[in-house]
Amino acid sequence: MKKMDYQNVKGTQDYLPNAEVVRRDIRRTLEDVFIQYGCKPLETPILNYTELLASKYGGGAEILEEMYTFTDRGERDLALRYDLTIPFAKVVAMNPALKMPFKRYEIGKVFRDGPIKTGRFREFTQCDVDIVGADSQIAEAELMLMALDAFRKLDMKVSIQYNNRKLLTGMLDVFGTESEKINKVILIIDKLEKVGLEAVISELNEQGLSTSTIILIKQFLTDERNSSLTYFESFSEQNEEVRLGLNELNELESYLEFLSINNQCIFNPFLARGLEIYTGTIYEIFLSDQSIKSSIGSGGRYDNAIGGLIGTNESFSTVGISFGLDVIYTAMSTSKKELRENPNIDYYIVPLGTQKESLLVANFLRNKGYKVEFEMSNKKLGKVLDKANKEKIRNVIIIGENEVNNNQFKIKDMFSGDERVESYQFN
Amino acid sequence: MKKMDYQNVKGTQDYLPNAEVVRRDIRRTLEDVFIQYGCKPLETPILNYTELLASKYGGGAEILEEMYTFTDRGERDLALRYDLTIPFAKVVAMNPALKMPFKRYEIGKVFRDGPIKTGRFREFTQCDVDIVGADSQIAEAELMLMALDAFRKLDMKVSIQYNNRKLLTGMLDVFGTESEKINKVILIIDKLEKVGLEAVISELNEQGLSTSTIILIKQFLTDERNSSLTYFESFSEQNEEVRLGLNELNELESYLEFLSINNQCIFNPFLARGLEIYTGTIYEIFLSDQSIKSSIGSGGRYDNAIGGLIGTNESFSTVGISFGLDVIYTAMSTSKKELRENPNIDYYIVPLGTQKESLLVANFLRNKGYKVEFEMSNKKLGKVLDKANKEKIRNVIIIGENEVNNNQFKIKDMFSGDERVESYQFN
Repeated sequence: MKKMDYQNVKGTQDYLPNAEVVRRDIRRTLEDVFIQYGCKPLETPILNYTELLASKYGGGAEILEEMYTFTDRGERDLALRYDLTIPFAKVVAMNPALKMPFKRYEIGKVFRDGPIKTGRFREFTQCDVDIVGADSQIAEAELMLMALDAFRKLDMKVSIQYNNRKLLTGMLDVFGTESEKINKVILIIDKLEKVGLEAVISELNEQGLSTSTIILIKQFLTDERNSSLTYFESFSEQNEEVRLGLNELNELESYLEFLSINNQCIFNPFLARGLEIYTGTIYEIFLSDQSIKSSIGSGGRYDNAIGGLIGTNESFSTVGISFGLDVIYTAMSTSKKELRENPNIDYYIVPLGTQKESLLVANFLRNKGYKVEFEMSNKKLGKVLDKANKEKIRNVIIIGENEVNNNQFKIKDMFSGDERVESYQFN
Repeated sequence: MKKMDYQNVKGTQDYLPNAEVVRRDIRRTLEDVFIQYGCKPLETPILNYTELLASKYGGGAEILEEMYTFTDRGERDLALRYDLTIPFAKVVAMNPALKMPFKRYEIGKVFRDGPIKTGRFREFTQCDVDIVGADSQIAEAELMLMALDAFRKLDMKVSIQYNNRKLLTGMLDVFGTESEKINKVILIIDKLEKVGLEAVISELNEQGLSTSTIILIKQFLTDERNSSLTYFESFSEQNEEVRLGLNELNELESYLEFLSINNQCIFNPFLARGLEIYTGTIYEIFLSDQSIKSSIGSGGRYDNAIGGLIGTNESFSTVGISFGLDVIYTAMSTSKKELRENPNIDYYIVPLGTQKESLLVANFLRNKGYKVEFEMSNKKLGKVLDKANKEKIRNVIIIGENEVNNNQFKIKDMFSGDERVESYQFN
């Protein structure tokens, strides 16, 4: 037979046990934190009608282009979900009896047929929390607190940058930016940290903004006082959007101070977030050591999307946060601390011609709650001990006929070399 | 705006929190048991090249017809996986450095565009354990033990029926069944319990088997001694397959007896399992109370599939077991015991004009490890207590200005009606 040449689809990958153990820990840590914060689990299908996912309140033109679409045997137009937000909105729309505020989490796969860059995949896992029916900034504060709690438990140092879309939009309005250009300008300004002031100004020039607008934006970008909310007070008298955004930011700041997390949460007046759906607070989470430059979690308030999707004038004030399992895993594996001891195997049982009796010992230890690996092959003891060393398994139990006859088994501590004997009634 | 009429794709569904909480518990219980048995986690992509999934060692003609296929933007032929076995085989093929025996578990979504019956979905979750590189029946015994352990932890009473494909094939050969008809005959006999003897015999007649063969099969099906392995000893002298199958069954039985699980594991000489890939032991798990007739887990030995998929003559003896999350969930929810107390919310905090201070208490309790729900709306207290009652939340903490001024909070026990006061330094 010819050996077949298997490969994974471009943009997908297998996670082998060493990687998946880490990912499992991340997933469980996040889920446990979500539960602690009173979030309820939801599971939505990956398969969706294309019509739903292509809604104008969906992911926007760029994402829609990256949608995997196909027809099933019944000639229905289907697509794979590209995020967990639209399915969430669908659930809210289909279940009017849901009690508000409704705070749910979902951890699941999403799919985008887009360009592949480092750390960007076509099939990846999102971990989302969204709250619908809460219009106070306390919702934002709680999500930011939750994010800090989660990353503390993951032993990762992070900070959160936040801003408010109303403030940014209002300021650009004050500077005389034509309203149809505001979204584009926001996207350009968002790149300030990455590309620098001159590149931003030159891109703004290309947009055909008036000279006075560009001068005012440049003043704004370079004014040292812009990192304090007081800077915006004079503008708030001129512009309603600035005033509303400033109010929300002041409310949010008061919560962050009260919770003593204001040192980890930093106001960034240029933070924009690409998507158009956001209507108020936005935030992105960054690694403090900058080992990954892009954000490892993000979210914000999007008060119009669910109502828009449902097609109703009812208000569905919504705020959410999304953690990327894959980018968190990448961050963790680059800063990986070598584990001293394998946490997933408490005992490794090696039978020497005593398979049945050894299985009894395995069963006995598992019933006590231990994690037990049982060697099923007839490999030589030397090879087996090599494996234990390589996998950092501390306790190896070797059971030969002598042990069975003497109603005992030996536990070898692979780290110290010590052996101890436990009695066990085989017969 | 017109209210849009959203719906789920046929054969898929949302799991709302009440359902998903149960499913989360099942998933975690199974995963914890898998870990206890030394299984390593693997995560494989849902997206695959159609060529891989359509391999002749794949799921068989019926499953291949039910495959969702499409092309991506790069015109590649892709398909959604329909099981976790082929992706597992692919991983073994792509990673020759994997140490054998390799025991992995994977919990993930699979997709089949097939007919919808009760409890059969087009998108569903499988929980699989497979061991490659273990040829002793001890592997089967361990998987059966693990299954019993898992269902004990899920508080479900089950029994396992087992058989051996070699035995069944060999017996049919002894009876003079033409070899190309054996698989079809096995599928017919598999339905004995469901349709009864006469229907089976009439179906066998339709296959054009000789009269003598049908008489012999009928004798076999009705012989009271057929539930004991000794019945097959005389046949094993006439047929090599019967002999091999009987040896394996005797070995397996000796392990089951030794582990004292032989009362829950029942030999069924007609058990067949639909798929052709099986080569030895096969088993299916059934609910003892028969509230669901179909099996809630199953598996067996398939020694040729991985080698076949890889295209090599190397032996990849493999044995696996698969648990259907959805059918287990259905079984659990039909036999649901009403929970007295919500296990997912330890405290429900209700601020009365004290949102900031209440958030501090929430944070304080979460840091101690409690699960805390925080009321973000400004609903009236009566409505909030209604919600607590409905969701069976036991402890409600109400924080008004008085409590803040007196540096304390009150915990109301919703079951007994008692209140107790805890001191907390707000100021």
